[in-house]
Amino acid sequence: MKIVSSQSDLKNNLSLVSRAVPSRAEPAVLANVLIEATETSQKVSMTAFDGSMGIKTSFNAEVIEGGSITLPAKLFNDIVARLPEMEITLSVAEEENNFIATISSTSGEFRLAGIDAEEFPELPQVKGEQVMELPIAIVNEGLGGCLFAASTELSKQVLTGVHLKTKVLGESDRADILEFAATDSHRLAVVATDLNQEDIESESVVSLPDFAVTIPAKALRELERIVADAGESDRIKVSFDEVVMVFELGDRLLTSAKIPGDYPAYGQLIPQNFAREMIVDRKRLLSSLELVAVLAQKNNLVKFSLSNDLGELTVSADAQDVGNAKQSLPAEIMGEDIEIAFNIKYLMDGLKALPTAEIKMQLNEWNQPVIFSPLGGLDMTYLVMPVQIRN
Amino acid sequence: MKIVSSQSDLKNNLSLVSRAVPSRAEPAVLANVLIEATETSQKVSMTAFDGSMGIKTSFNAEVIEGGSITLPAKLFNDIVARLPEMEITLSVAEEENNFIATISSTSGEFRLAGIDAEEFPELPQVKGEQVMELPIAIVNEGLGGCLFAASTELSKQVLTGVHLKTKVLGESDRADILEFAATDSHRLAVVATDLNQEDIESESVVSLPDFAVTIPAKALRELERIVADAGESDRIKVSFDEVVMVFELGDRLLTSAKIPGDYPAYGQLIPQNFAREMIVDRKRLLSSLELVAVLAQKNNLVKFSLSNDLGELTVSADAQDVGNAKQSLPAEIMGEDIEIAFNIKYLMDGLKALPTAEIKMQLNEWNQPVIFSPLGGLDMTYLVMPVQIRN
Repeated sequence: MKIVSSQSDLKNNLSLVSRAVPSRAEPAVLANVLIEATETSQKVSMTAFDGSMGIKTSFNAEVIEGGSITLPAKLFNDIVARLPEMEITLSVAEEENNFIATISSTSGEFRLAGIDAEEFPELPQVKGEQVMELPIAIVNEGLGGCLFAASTELSKQVLTGVHLKTKVLGESDRADILEFAATDSHRLAVVATDLNQEDIESESVVSLPDFAVTIPAKALRELERIVADAGESDRIKVSFDEVVMVFELGDRLLTSAKIPGDYPAYGQLIPQNFAREMIVDRKRLLSSLELVAVLAQKNNLVKFSLSNDLGELTVSADAQDVGNAKQSLPAEIMGEDIEIAFNIKYLMDGLKALPTAEIKMQLNEWNQPVIFSPLGGLDMTYLVMPVQIRN
Repeated sequence: MKIVSSQSDLKNNLSLVSRAVPSRAEPAVLANVLIEATETSQKVSMTAFDGSMGIKTSFNAEVIEGGSITLPAKLFNDIVARLPEMEITLSVAEEENNFIATISSTSGEFRLAGIDAEEFPELPQVKGEQVMELPIAIVNEGLGGCLFAASTELSKQVLTGVHLKTKVLGESDRADILEFAATDSHRLAVVATDLNQEDIESESVVSLPDFAVTIPAKALRELERIVADAGESDRIKVSFDEVVMVFELGDRLLTSAKIPGDYPAYGQLIPQNFAREMIVDRKRLLSSLELVAVLAQKNNLVKFSLSNDLGELTVSADAQDVGNAKQSLPAEIMGEDIEIAFNIKYLMDGLKALPTAEIKMQLNEWNQPVIFSPLGGLDMTYLVMPVQIRN
């Protein structure tokens, strides 16, 4: 194998796939990146796989001699990242059982011990596939609005994922809504994206009226990264079977095992009627929370006091023996005055993800679920359970 | 006490003095910042002290009512740093044994429990002082060129400091050189600054022919920070006695205990004659070292191979079973070819501190001390002991 590539192409692709390299590799070859070069297409591909999530990219390079090898991801990455922008030659001499790669540039060279490409497992393939194409905007909105609410505790299994499901509203077979949901059992974020937008080709989703899958949030965070520099009009091809889901964007591919098991029926947790409602400036509320958070470091508790008469929301935190904090901001309030408390971290997470300048808070009593949603635009619902106020 | 100040004045002064707040405060009041407001001068001062190092700043503010209090440094800092740029009122109600401060702005307020200012110890004062004034440039050159080489191991006592001493070259009583030196016993950095510069007033140093003190590097790192935004023509007033050294720059004051004990006679370690010499581009050598460092992660060993014929320096690292790295760069070499090895971290530290585009390396044999120095400009000497090459 012998290829010549720009430092930036090597670096960008390597840093992208490296995200799928596990911190503890078992078998050892998974600590490596698979590099495959094809002479006919003049393309180089890189693949990494942690046993559940795999990332593969391919890019144009001068392939003088095709071939493949796997190289230690971290070392290879460290070397390439430190090299200046220049042409880099990567070669493996054609000898039997030679897995030493030479990385050379004008100023010098590195020799790295790799592992036979034959030992690298194949990425899981989708069998009897179901396929759809989704516009980037839908994926960005859906993930941006709910990924943060997934649980990070591995023991919570299905809650470490994001649940994707389609909904049919009309009489046709065609799905109208693609819903993204995540919850860690303390809070729930749901984004319903409209599939009946002009720029979605009807044939791409028509065959999927009833699909519902749960994908690890970890993999979807990488998907967010992969689509970050895509154009607004690009589309992601999504294919899946019972076990695996594959996302493709141009030369980039992400594969993930689905999380088996039933996802909670979250729809029934969301109240439909509310005794109170408040509209408030999102950034201003977020700034106020960041301020009082300084005094909420021990119990993470923030109290909301809604004053209908004053048209004012007061947020406050109390750290016994240390001090307390109080910030007020104007708010449009409907319903009777109330005091209600939350875990401040949950609130701040949600406020950061809500995409509009103003937001709506809907609630009933101090011990019942509260809904935060954007005012206009996206159909996003963020449910937070309040916390009992200690007096 | 009641003062009104801009958020930025409070923030900048607080973050400066906070550096002297110890992580484990004993007595507890040292976890606080002392705030003193004087009505007549319309000035507010802040003081922090870790038992060895103290920082005091003062700034203009609207002092409506003079007074003093101490407040928890971290919390106060966190609050002020998060407030937007606006006027902030800090007040303590005039009641007996009331040590609760109110920090208020237009949007709300904080109440913080403080401790009586009476409990805050006075910063050590200099008795029967010796005084000199030093231009900022001399202090910056001296500290920048040697602070990195001081030991960070507390058990190394005198080596955790920077040694400052004056030297008389001529027949007068007047000191001609102020030398800054630091060593951790593996490497030694010495900067000799010329006191006979036009902009140093003769009377300021004339009385100090023989002074030699060792100041904790920790305090001098803060001094570096304090002088960072000073003008080139500013001067630092330095006063000291047997125990304490005080640095003053305008409204900022840093006090530090001296480190007792004899500093090593480092001058005799520096060879005067060399069999070999090399001149090389500093940044290029640093880049090459950063590259090969990837393969030197285990033993920190880098090998220099000097080739007089080729006019080339090759730096290389070898990580057994993993790979190796080699980078070459042009160098002006005098003397016979040689291979010599170093701790790569020590080299990189020194190269970052050397201030010129090209540097000189002077050496004798592979097991004798090597000197790195800037080519022109500052009189700086960086001595590194080589490491035995394992073959």
